[in-house]
Amino acid sequence: MASESGKLWGGRFVGAVDPIMEKFNASIAYDRHLWEVDVQGSKAYSRGLEKAGLLTKAEMDQILQGLDKVAEEWAQGTFKLNPSDEDIHTANERRLKELIGETAGKLHTGRSRNDQVVTDLRLWMRQTCSTLSALLWELIRTMVDRAEAERDVLFPGYTHLQRAQPIRWSHWILSHAVALTRDSERLLEVQKRINVLPLGSGAIAGNPLGVDRELLRAELNFGAITLNSMDATSERDFVAEFLFWASLCMTHLSRMAEDLILYGTKEFGFVQLSDAYSTGSSLMPQKKNPDSLELIRSKAGRVFGRCAGLLMTLKGLPSTYNKDLQEDKEAVFEVSDTMSAVLQVATGVISTLQIHRENMAQALSPDMLATDLAYYLVRKGMPFRQAHEASGKAVFMAETKGVALNQLSLQELQTISPLFSGDVSCVWDYGHSVEQYGALGGTARSSIDWQIGQVRALLRAQQA
Amino acid sequence: MASESGKLWGGRFVGAVDPIMEKFNASIAYDRHLWEVDVQGSKAYSRGLEKAGLLTKAEMDQILQGLDKVAEEWAQGTFKLNPSDEDIHTANERRLKELIGETAGKLHTGRSRNDQVVTDLRLWMRQTCSTLSALLWELIRTMVDRAEAERDVLFPGYTHLQRAQPIRWSHWILSHAVALTRDSERLLEVQKRINVLPLGSGAIAGNPLGVDRELLRAELNFGAITLNSMDATSERDFVAEFLFWASLCMTHLSRMAEDLILYGTKEFGFVQLSDAYSTGSSLMPQKKNPDSLELIRSKAGRVFGRCAGLLMTLKGLPSTYNKDLQEDKEAVFEVSDTMSAVLQVATGVISTLQIHRENMAQALSPDMLATDLAYYLVRKGMPFRQAHEASGKAVFMAETKGVALNQLSLQELQTISPLFSGDVSCVWDYGHSVEQYGALGGTARSSIDWQIGQVRALLRAQQA
Amino acid sequence: MASESGKLWGGRFVGAVDPIMEKFNASIAYDRHLWEVDVQGSKAYSRGLEKAGLLTKAEMDQILQGLDKVAEEWAQGTFKLNPSDEDIHTANERRLKELIGETAGKLHTGRSRNDQVVTDLRLWMRQTCSTLSALLWELIRTMVDRAEAERDVLFPGYTHLQRAQPIRWSHWILSHAVALTRDSERLLEVQKRINVLPLGSGAIAGNPLGVDRELLRAELNFGAITLNSMDATSERDFVAEFLFWASLCMTHLSRMAEDLILYGTKEFGFVQLSDAYSTGSSLMPQKKNPDSLELIRSKAGRVFGRCAGLLMTLKGLPSTYNKDLQEDKEAVFEVSDTMSAVLQVATGVISTLQIHRENMAQALSPDMLATDLAYYLVRKGMPFRQAHEASGKAVFMAETKGVALNQLSLQELQTISPLFSGDVSCVWDYGHSVEQYGALGGTARSSIDWQIGQVRALLRAQQA
Amino acid sequence: MASESGKLWGGRFVGAVDPIMEKFNASIAYDRHLWEVDVQGSKAYSRGLEKAGLLTKAEMDQILQGLDKVAEEWAQGTFKLNPSDEDIHTANERRLKELIGETAGKLHTGRSRNDQVVTDLRLWMRQTCSTLSALLWELIRTMVDRAEAERDVLFPGYTHLQRAQPIRWSHWILSHAVALTRDSERLLEVQKRINVLPLGSGAIAGNPLGVDRELLRAELNFGAITLNSMDATSERDFVAEFLFWASLCMTHLSRMAEDLILYGTKEFGFVQLSDAYSTGSSLMPQKKNPDSLELIRSKAGRVFGRCAGLLMTLKGLPSTYNKDLQEDKEAVFEVSDTMSAVLQVATGVISTLQIHRENMAQALSPDMLATDLAYYLVRKGMPFRQAHEASGKAVFMAETKGVALNQLSLQELQTISPLFSGDVSCVWDYGHSVEQYGALGGTARSSIDWQIGQVRALLRAQQA
Repeated sequence: MASESGKLWGGRFVGAVDPIMEKFNASIAYDRHLWEVDVQGSKAYSRGLEKAGLLTKAEMDQILQGLDKVAEEWAQGTFKLNPSDEDIHTANERRLKELIGETAGKLHTGRSRNDQVVTDLRLWMRQTCSTLSALLWELIRTMVDRAEAERDVLFPGYTHLQRAQPIRWSHWILSHAVALTRDSERLLEVQKRINVLPLGSGAIAGNPLGVDRELLRAELNFGAITLNSMDATSERDFVAEFLFWASLCMTHLSRMAEDLILYGTKEFGFVQLSDAYSTGSSLMPQKKNPDSLELIRSKAGRVFGRCAGLLMTLKGLPSTYNKDLQEDKEAVFEVSDTMSAVLQVATGVISTLQIHRENMAQALSPDMLATDLAYYLVRKGMPFRQAHEASGKAVFMAETKGVALNQLSLQELQTISPLFSGDVSCVWDYGHSVEQYGALGGTARSSIDWQIGQVRALLRAQQA
Repeated sequence: MASESGKLWGGRFVGAVDPIMEKFNASIAYDRHLWEVDVQGSKAYSRGLEKAGLLTKAEMDQILQGLDKVAEEWAQGTFKLNPSDEDIHTANERRLKELIGETAGKLHTGRSRNDQVVTDLRLWMRQTCSTLSALLWELIRTMVDRAEAERDVLFPGYTHLQRAQPIRWSHWILSHAVALTRDSERLLEVQKRINVLPLGSGAIAGNPLGVDRELLRAELNFGAITLNSMDATSERDFVAEFLFWASLCMTHLSRMAEDLILYGTKEFGFVQLSDAYSTGSSLMPQKKNPDSLELIRSKAGRVFGRCAGLLMTLKGLPSTYNKDLQEDKEAVFEVSDTMSAVLQVATGVISTLQIHRENMAQALSPDMLATDLAYYLVRKGMPFRQAHEASGKAVFMAETKGVALNQLSLQELQTISPLFSGDVSCVWDYGHSVEQYGALGGTARSSIDWQIGQVRALLRAQQA
Repeated sequence: MASESGKLWGGRFVGAVDPIMEKFNASIAYDRHLWEVDVQGSKAYSRGLEKAGLLTKAEMDQILQGLDKVAEEWAQGTFKLNPSDEDIHTANERRLKELIGETAGKLHTGRSRNDQVVTDLRLWMRQTCSTLSALLWELIRTMVDRAEAERDVLFPGYTHLQRAQPIRWSHWILSHAVALTRDSERLLEVQKRINVLPLGSGAIAGNPLGVDRELLRAELNFGAITLNSMDATSERDFVAEFLFWASLCMTHLSRMAEDLILYGTKEFGFVQLSDAYSTGSSLMPQKKNPDSLELIRSKAGRVFGRCAGLLMTLKGLPSTYNKDLQEDKEAVFEVSDTMSAVLQVATGVISTLQIHRENMAQALSPDMLATDLAYYLVRKGMPFRQAHEASGKAVFMAETKGVALNQLSLQELQTISPLFSGDVSCVWDYGHSVEQYGALGGTARSSIDWQIGQVRALLRAQQA
Repeated sequence: MASESGKLWGGRFVGAVDPIMEKFNASIAYDRHLWEVDVQGSKAYSRGLEKAGLLTKAEMDQILQGLDKVAEEWAQGTFKLNPSDEDIHTANERRLKELIGETAGKLHTGRSRNDQVVTDLRLWMRQTCSTLSALLWELIRTMVDRAEAERDVLFPGYTHLQRAQPIRWSHWILSHAVALTRDSERLLEVQKRINVLPLGSGAIAGNPLGVDRELLRAELNFGAITLNSMDATSERDFVAEFLFWASLCMTHLSRMAEDLILYGTKEFGFVQLSDAYSTGSSLMPQKKNPDSLELIRSKAGRVFGRCAGLLMTLKGLPSTYNKDLQEDKEAVFEVSDTMSAVLQVATGVISTLQIHRENMAQALSPDMLATDLAYYLVRKGMPFRQAHEASGKAVFMAETKGVALNQLSLQELQTISPLFSGDVSCVWDYGHSVEQYGALGGTARSSIDWQIGQVRALLRAQQA
C-alpha cells in the first residue's frame, strides 16, 4: 500500500505504482538543487504558523532546529534520500519527521506543494539572477576597458559582410557591450517579477488559517506578494521571461561570437584567440579552432529551445496547477548553468584576445571612402543623391581601370563632376574619415569616449 | 540598366535583375504600412539638416511641404506606386522628387536606409503599443467589472482538472485578469525600449555632418537616443521583445480560452458563449461551437512562431545591418493585427458570456471539503499530516460505502478519529468554506475586494 | 604544456586552458553513453586498416583484443576516466594505449573525430530507434486490442468539444492508434537515413589511405555509405528528423492525454485512471490527479524545444564541421529517454484504464441525432441544405419548449416539414445511428473491424 | 437573423455577430487560393453521390456544369465574393445555388466542411509539392552541372572556419547538392502522406449514406484513403511534415548562403555574385551586397517559425476538429511561396556566380598539408598518433621561425623525425594532395565523378 511508503497523500490509494511511472513522475533527481531554499521557505512558514497560533513557540523552535539540521546534512553531503522521496519537499519533510517526530506533521498546515514549490523556485532564481547579473557586468566591464585601451585602432566596418566604412575597433567592441547593457536592464525587470512571494496561496483557494503573508514576505525578503492564489500557484511567467531573457542575451553573444570567428580566420586575420580558448584537431596538426566561440554561438539554440519548450507546454493549459508545470525546473537549471559558463568563457575570450593591428590597417581600402567622396561633393553644394551617383561613377571608373579609388586623377574625377578640385586628396585619410562621425553614437573618438562614459554610468547605477 | 529605373544605389550596376529576385527583395508590399511614420521621420530629419546647415530654410520648407503632400496622397489613397519602388523609403523619396525636384535629393544626406527604416519601425510600434495597451486594459477592466458584479457566485476550483476546493467565480476571473496586468507591465517596459531614437546612425559609422541627434529626438518625441551606431542599425531586441510579449500574453489568453471552452461544454455547463462569438456546423444542426475561443487559443501558436522565427533569423548573424533583418516587419505587422483582434474578441466574449449559476452550484460536492475536514481536526490540535490522512480515510470510507462525504455519520467519523464531534456538521457549508480563505490573495470576499482594488489601482496608475 | 596531459592534438599548444572552458568544451559527461558503439566503430575501422595494409594482422588482433578489454571495463563499471578525457573517443583511445601500447596510435590513421563521432551517433541511434519502434508498436497493439474488446461501447463524439454525434468508444481509440501508425511509418524513414555510414570521411576531404568504405559498411551493417565527405561530417539531418519525429509523435500523445484528462474529470466521468498512474494531493485528501497524462502532455513541449534548439543551432552555420554540432548529442539522449518513458507510461495507462459505460451511455442525448433527423428528410427526397435547416428548426423548437429533441410530437415536426411521418421514431436509436456510418473509416461496426484489420496488417508488415 | 444572410448553419442563431469577430473567424481572405481544388473535390463528391443514389444523373450533371461555371468565373477573375462568404466552401456553394438553384443544396449531403477542407488542402499541397520538387531538382541539376564543369578548381576546405585541407571546388558544390537530395527524398515521403483521401469522413463519425470512398479516391487520383474519420478530419501531420521539410531544406540553404556570403567577402574573394542577385547601398556607392543570399539565410527563421507555430497550436488540442486547425492554411501558403522563391533565386545565384580561381589558388597554403606530412610518416611506418605529433612539431617550428611549413629544410625536419627524407618534397603539391582522397566520398577526381553519377542517378530515378 502506498501509504506504507509514506507518500504525502496518505491513506487512500490501494494500487501499486508502475516503477517507470514512479521515475517518470519523480522530480527529486533535479529538484534536489532546491534543498537550501526549500528549508529557507519552510523556516519562514513555520514562523508564520507560530504567529497565527498554529504552532506553539516550542513547536516552532523544534521545527526550526530540525530544519537547520536537515540543511546541515545537505550541506555536508550526508543527507540520504529514500526511494519514496519523490521530490525535495517530501524528502525534507520526511527527514524532519525522523529528526523531530510528529511535530513535523504540523509544518505543512495550510500549505500545499503548489505554493511551496513555486516559492522555492523563486528563491532559487532570485539568487541565480544576481550571480548572472554580476557575471554579465564582469563581461561588459572587460569589454569597456578594452574599448578604452584600444581606441586608436581602426579597421573596416562591414555591413552585409561587405567592407563599408572605416571604424574604430572600440566602436565594434562597444556595439556588443551596449547590446549587453540592454540584457542587464531586462534582467533587472525579470528579477523584479521573480521577487514576488506566492507562499500562502495553498493549492488553489488561498490560506485558510490566518497566516500573515506580509510577515512571510518580510521573512523571505520578497518585494511584494502575489495577488491571486490561483494565478500564483500556476503562472510561470517569471520562468518564461527568464528563459527568453537568456535567449535574447545568447542571440547577442552568438552574433559577437560569429564576428570573432570571422575576424579570426586566416582571411580576415584581425584577431587571434588565446590558446586557452581554442582547441586543436585530432587529425590536422596545424589547426587551432575557436571552439569556445562556436560553443557560445551554438548555445543560443539550446537556450532558446528551452524557452520554446516551456511556452509550448504552457499553451492551452487549463488554469491553476497541472503537473505539466513540473517542466519548469530542469529548463531553469540547465539555462542557468549554460549562461554562467557562457558569460565566463566570453569574458575570458575577450580579455585574452590578441588583435593584429597591421592586418586591420591593411584591410582598409580606398573604396571604403566612397561615401566620404560623396560627402565631399555634398559639402560643395551637390544634393546627396547626385553626389552618391557621382561617387558611384568614380568607383565604377576605378574598377574599370583596375586602380584604387584614390588613384583616379583629378582630371578623371572632373569628368564626373566639375566640383572636384585639389582638396579632394584629404578625403583619402582613414583617420580623418572616422573623426567626421562626431554625432553621438558615431565612431569619432569623442563619441567613443561618450559611449564609454554612458556604459560606465550604467554600471555604477547597477552597483548602487 | 538598373540606374535608369531610378534605383537608390545609382550609377554602378550593369546587370539586369531577375524578376523573381526583384520581388523576393522588395518589401514595399508590406512596408507601405510605414508610410506615415516614414514621412514623419523625414520631416524631422530635414529639420535636423537645416539646423546643421545642410539645407537652407527655404529648402527645408520645400521638403516639408513636399512631404506633407506625399502623406496626403497616401491618406487619400491616391499615392501611386512605381514598379521600381522597392520599399517605402524609395517610394516616398521618388515621389518627393517628382513633386519638388532636385532638392529632394538633399533629404537623404548623411542618412542611410539602415537608420531610416529602424526609426520608422520604432515610430510605428510606439503607436501600435499604445493602442494594444489600451485594448488590453479594456479587457482587464471588463474582467474586473464582471468580477465585482458576480462576487457571490461559487463554483468548483480545479487543479489537474479535478475538483479541488470551492472558490468564487470572481476569483477565477481575477486569476486571469491578474496575469494580464503583468502583460501590461511588460508592455510598458517594451515601449520604453522601443522609444529610443536610432536616427543619425547612418549605415554603420554614425552621422558625419554634425546633425544634432538630441534635436531629432525632441522632434520625434523619443525618450532617449541610441548609444552606438553599429548596434542601433542592426539590433532588433525591441522587435524580439515585442513578439515575446505577445507570445506570453497569448499564452495567458490561450489558458483562459481553454478554461472557457471546458466550462462551456455540455458536461461542465457553467458558461454559455453569446451567439455573436459562436458559430454553427455545416453538418450538425444542433451544434454551437466556441470558435472565438478556439481561435484565440490557436493564435498563441502563430504569434509564438513569429517570435521563434525572428530569433532564429538573428542567431549567429554577423553584426551590423544584414538584409536578413528585413524579416522583422512582417512579423511585427502580423502580430500587431492578431493581438488587436484577439484582445477585442476576448473583451467581447467576456462581456457577453452568460453564466449558469445553478450548474455551478450543483457542481460543488462534499468531497471538495475534505481539506476543510482536515482543517477541522487541525483546529482540534491534530498535526496536519495526521489530519490529512484521517480525512483521506473518511473519503475512502464514503467511497466504499457509496455515500457522499457529508453523509458519514458522526460514529463512522469517530472510528477514524475521536476528535470528531457534533460541530463537524458546520464543515459542510460551501459559503463558510470559501470565507476561510481570508489571507491576501485567497477566495474570501474580503480578499476578492482587495484584489479588485489592487487591479483598479494599477489601471489608474497606467492612465496617469 | 597541453601535450603533456595527452590531448589528442599533440605537440603544439603552449597556453593553459581555463578550467571553466575545459568543462564547457568537454562532452564526456554525456557522450560516455556512446562507449559501446565507439568500440564497435573502432573495431570495424581497424579491420578496414588491416585490409588497406595499414595494420598487420597481428596489430589488428592486438587492437581488437584491446578494444574488447576496454568494452569489458565499461560494461563492468571499472573503466576509470582521467581528467584529460574530454570525450569518449579520447578516453577509449587513451585506455587502449595503456592496455596495448604504441600500436594503439595506429588506430586513428586517416580517421578524424569528425567522422568517428557521427558514426558513433548513428550506431547509437539505430539501436535506440529499434527500441522506440518496438515500444511504439506495443502501445498501438494495446490500443487495438482494447478497441477490439470494447467495440460495443457507445459514447459521444465531440467536435469543438461540443457533443457532435454518437460514436463507438473503439472509434476514439483507433483514431489515436491510427495517428501512431503514421509515427511508426515516419520512424522507419528516419531509421533508413540514420543507417548510412559516414566513416571514412576523415575531417573534411575524405580518406586518403585507401580504406574500403564498403567493407566498413558491411562490418557495421549499414544500409549505405554517405556520398560526400564534407556533408557527411557536418550534416545532422538525421538528428533533426529524429527530434521532429519525436515532436510530432508527442503532439499525438498530448492530444490523447488531453482527451483522457477531460474524460476523467468528474464532469465527463467516462474513464478512471488506475491508481498506478495517478497521484494524490499533499493538501486535498480527496484528490486523485492524472499526473501521468499531464506529464505526457507536457513533454510535447520539452521534446519540441530540443528540435527547435537544434534547428536554430544549425541555421546559418558555415558548412563542414563546427563545434556547434556538439549540441546534437544531449538532445538525442534526452529525447530518447523521454520517448521511452512516455511510450511505456502511455501503454500502462491505456492497459489499466477503467471505463464507465453507464456514464458514457447517459451522455448520449437526442440532440446529437439532429444530423440523423436531417438525413431522414434527405432520404425522403429533401435537399440536404433544406433538411439541415429543417432539423435546425426542430432543435430550436425543442430548446424553446424545453424538451428533448426526440420528444417533439409528430405534429410539431410536421409544422416544420410535411415529410415527417411515423417512421421518424426509429431515428432516436443510438445503435442504429452509429451503424449508418458504414463507409470505410466510419464508426459502424464493420468499419471498426476493417480499421482493426488495417492496423494489424501494418503491425505484421512491421514485424516481417 | 443569421439565416437570412445565408450562413451554412441555417435556422438557429438569433444573435448578431461582432464585425471584428466576423473578420477574425473568416478564412476567405486566404482560403480563396483553394478555389480550384474545392471545385475539383465537389465534382468528385457529386459523382460519389450519384453512384450512391443520392443524386440522379440529371442532378449530377447540373451540379457538374454549375461547378464548371464557378471555376470559370474564378479563372476569369469574375467571381464576386459576398460579405457572407466566410470561406471558399461557402462561397462556391452559394454561387452554385445562384447558378443552378435548389439542386445545389444536395451537394453537401453527408459531407462536412471538416472533411471538405482537408481534402481541398491535400489536393492543393499535392500540386504544390510537385512544383517545389521540380524547382528543387532544377537547383540540384544546376549545381551538379557546375560541379562537373569546374572539377579542376582547388581551394581551401575549412572546418571551424579555419583552413583545413585542400579540396576541389566541386566537392564543396556537391556537399550542398547532396544535402538537397535528402530534401528531395523527404519531400517524396511527405507527398506520399499528403496523397491520402479524407473525403467521406463527414464531421467526425464517417459517411452515413453509402458513399463509396474508393470511387472518390479514384476520381481524385489519391493513393489511399484515410483509415479513421475522427483522425482524418483533425490530423494535420502532413502539414507539420511539410513545414518541417521546408525548415530543414531552408537550414541547408542557409548554410550554403552563409558559405557564399563569406566566400564573396573582399577577404575571401573566392566568388562574386551576379549583379542580378546583389543590391547596392543607399549611402555607400562602392557597396554591392549579397541581398539574395542574406534573404535566403533569413527565411530559414521565418519558415521554421511557421513550423513551430503549428506544432504549438496542435499541442494538447482535444481530438477531432477544433477551429484551431484553421491556422494550417496560411502557414502552408506562406511557406510554399517562400520555398518557391528561394529555390528559384538560389538556382539563379548558382548559375550566374563568378568564381575567382586565382584567389582560390592563392589561398592554399602549405600548413594545410600538415596532415599529409603526418601521412608521409605513417607511410614510412610511424603510428599515426606519433606522426600527428611530429607534424605538429614541424608546424610549430615553422611558425617559430616565421617560415612556411614547406620551407623547413630536410635537416630541420629530421630533428623531428629521422624518417623524413628527400621524397618529402612531393608532399607539397596540392594537386597530389587532393588525389589521395580516393575513397568513395572524398575529394579525388574519381570520387567527384562518382558523386556526380550518384546524384544524376537520383535525378533520373525521380523523373521516372
